[in-house]
Amino acid sequence: MLPADRVSTDPDLLAAHCRDEADLCAAGAPLAVVRPQDTAEVAAIVRVAAAHGVPVVPQGARTGLAGAANAVDGALLVSLAGMSRILEIDPGERIAVVQPGVVNAQLRRAVAEKGLAFPPDPGSWESSTIGGNVSTDAGGMCCVKYGVTGEYVLGLEVVLADGEILRCGRRTVKGVAGYDLPSLFVGAEGTLGIITEITVRLRPAAQEARTLVAMFPTVAAAGQAVSAVIAAGYVPSMLELLDRTHLRAIEAYRPMGLDTEAAAMLLIAADTGDRAGADLERITECCRAAGASELYLAGDATEAEALTAARRLAHPAMEQAAMQAFPGGRGGLVVDDVAVPRSRIVDLVTGVEEISMRRGVLVGVVGHAGDGNLHPVIVVDRADPACVERGRVVFDEIMRLGLALGGTCTGEHGVGLLKREWLARELGPVGLRVHRALKAALDPAGILNPGKVIAPD
Amino acid sequence: MLPADRVSTDPDLLAAHCRDEADLCAAGAPLAVVRPQDTAEVAAIVRVAAAHGVPVVPQGARTGLAGAANAVDGALLVSLAGMSRILEIDPGERIAVVQPGVVNAQLRRAVAEKGLAFPPDPGSWESSTIGGNVSTDAGGMCCVKYGVTGEYVLGLEVVLADGEILRCGRRTVKGVAGYDLPSLFVGAEGTLGIITEITVRLRPAAQEARTLVAMFPTVAAAGQAVSAVIAAGYVPSMLELLDRTHLRAIEAYRPMGLDTEAAAMLLIAADTGDRAGADLERITECCRAAGASELYLAGDATEAEALTAARRLAHPAMEQAAMQAFPGGRGGLVVDDVAVPRSRIVDLVTGVEEISMRRGVLVGVVGHAGDGNLHPVIVVDRADPACVERGRVVFDEIMRLGLALGGTCTGEHGVGLLKREWLARELGPVGLRVHRALKAALDPAGILNPGKVIAPD
Repeated sequence: MLPADRVSTDPDLLAAHCRDEADLCAAGAPLAVVRPQDTAEVAAIVRVAAAHGVPVVPQGARTGLAGAANAVDGALLVSLAGMSRILEIDPGERIAVVQPGVVNAQLRRAVAEKGLAFPPDPGSWESSTIGGNVSTDAGGMCCVKYGVTGEYVLGLEVVLADGEILRCGRRTVKGVAGYDLPSLFVGAEGTLGIITEITVRLRPAAQEARTLVAMFPTVAAAGQAVSAVIAAGYVPSMLELLDRTHLRAIEAYRPMGLDTEAAAMLLIAADTGDRAGADLERITECCRAAGASELYLAGDATEAEALTAARRLAHPAMEQAAMQAFPGGRGGLVVDDVAVPRSRIVDLVTGVEEISMRRGVLVGVVGHAGDGNLHPVIVVDRADPACVERGRVVFDEIMRLGLALGGTCTGEHGVGLLKREWLARELGPVGLRVHRALKAALDPAGILNPGKVIAPD
Repeated sequence: MLPADRVSTDPDLLAAHCRDEADLCAAGAPLAVVRPQDTAEVAAIVRVAAAHGVPVVPQGARTGLAGAANAVDGALLVSLAGMSRILEIDPGERIAVVQPGVVNAQLRRAVAEKGLAFPPDPGSWESSTIGGNVSTDAGGMCCVKYGVTGEYVLGLEVVLADGEILRCGRRTVKGVAGYDLPSLFVGAEGTLGIITEITVRLRPAAQEARTLVAMFPTVAAAGQAVSAVIAAGYVPSMLELLDRTHLRAIEAYRPMGLDTEAAAMLLIAADTGDRAGADLERITECCRAAGASELYLAGDATEAEALTAARRLAHPAMEQAAMQAFPGGRGGLVVDDVAVPRSRIVDLVTGVEEISMRRGVLVGVVGHAGDGNLHPVIVVDRADPACVERGRVVFDEIMRLGLALGGTCTGEHGVGLLKREWLARELGPVGLRVHRALKAALDPAGILNPGKVIAPD
């Protein structure tokens, strides 16, 4: 059905494809990797898989952080990375139509050339695919003003569990015809169908942002500043938090003069054009009132971009820190992802500090404070089962804290394998039953990415 | 289970409750009207209905335009109008929690007092309920900038077909835990569950809008102006079109000096604060280049509000026009609702004019031109079967035209009974099969608003 060079059972290749970037999630032994080049090939693959009861695991760039793209035993890994064409950009309609393997940065650059913007900007934007972004409903730093990936999905083409091809959604700005099928596949992590084409809406290019840095003597003070900014009615285009652990990791990874004595840094941008200066002045006042020890307005776009780039280094910098703490490839990170009501950010960060201290496990906190979505990052020694176990206990305590604060177990990374139990707790028995009913309705044989999102019964 | 005064089988009351505002849609003979006051009562009603296989039709203010709230034979009509409490407004989180019977205007006023906005503004906003707005994914004049109702729904409480109570979604800004259940119930018109509580997100109050009126010698010229404004990168807060038929109907209904010789009027607002004046100047240029015969900038907020109020009179004014054309209660309107890609607005309006001429049926056009969502309004004599039949033919030709232009059969009114056949065409066999599978998964006995959205097999 496919040419030989697009079907591989080579053990090294299988090993390279068997997991995403989630540490500590199990990966099974796959049967083969297949690389379809169009929708018809995806449909043919699924029909064969369905006929033989073979599980199918769709994959993009495997940059996910919850194990959703990990292999399961005996599965066909369906790599959509080769379906990487931008099919259409229509400035008049402000839409683009893309294949799932298009890399986020590739789409952003292409639409920018036409004066348009595709806002979703997950940390992995230089490598992750739109198909993966849609399947996990990925977020990023823009979300506080511009929302998550799902808010940009107008239409989808999806290969269903029996190999039929569904086209759903629309190209029009508005449309309420029938059930909202695109939203059902967004964030479903490949458990309900394989996305083969995506129609996204675009925005006019944003105005240039002005960027403010605020340092705080306590993480709680930074959290108070966030609440004050939101309560004052501002909608920043970025409102990021880094704690001291991250500031130190970034300075060690790529020195740029960050104040590593501060307990926390906020990075705040306003892209409100002529109003941006006045907005940031008022935001500065909010920060000062919350106890900021230092406030610094970026002089120009280059400097603002350098500060944003520093924020983007948080993950690789923490990986390096973990590797240095536990050399010989033993250092690992469990990246958590919890979203709480914005007024509870202070409770979340102080709670995480308390858990870290009490359990003797290093936990850094970074994230999108403006929308209440933080990433506590737990450092573990993979070679030490007791340390891994302590990390798991900390992870569970953070999840429990997040739910107790009225939050959700995942703000943007998804459930995958990492958070199935916490999803079940968050949903409760009725919600879980509805999830199982929907899964059974669309994938009765259970061949689509089995065991992800919903644990086996 | 319910006190006697909240269960009624009085024939007059049943007659008053058996249909919404869609003309020409069938209504069955219901069993009773019940008026639950809380979620537990709704759940108890559904459990009894499920036990006896009795259909259940949820109703709000019955202002819908597609027959979704119409009675079916032997049904319990479940009026949610009495569940009308605003449970919470949280300015810090920018959310509100409401019961389904809260009237749109009631919520708008309550949040405005706290400096916040709930943007969705369907034409029926003074009387329609949030539950109905969510169930139809209602739109309005704000959508061109602020989106439809569904974009504001964060969380829902829903009574399922077996009487179980599902709580889904969240209170946090972000959250991707599991399948997007709220979006599945939004726009499902009560066929998958009965919504008993809604958590919506709010926005900071918008800045005062400045408003421009542009008159055009042809509807096509107005359409060209719309495309030019969008292509120039503007996002107006309102971009409405009224054709001459509507201008004349409004002048007859409530004279206010509208130019009834113009072929079309655009009503355009910008709420971009300090930039609004400059934006409207550039928009004025777009209109002039497209051939506007007259351009008028509202002098102040009072005048702008008067113009917007005139637009809001379109529906009652056309109802009066139909009644005057066909006296004795015979005049009726079939309000269509088609959304096309914005670049095809000219093709839609000229196509509708051609159909109207060719079939000898009066069709006015009004709507949300800025997002490609127009309402061709067909005037019929209900007492003349031949006239009604001609109206149906016109309706079908407009639907066919809309789909041929890459549009959808409903931009904001929903499917109900009116558009089931057109939905089936738009979905195609695979999409329809997925709809049936989802309906069967959540309502296996088919008791929830049966026959709506999806025609019987």
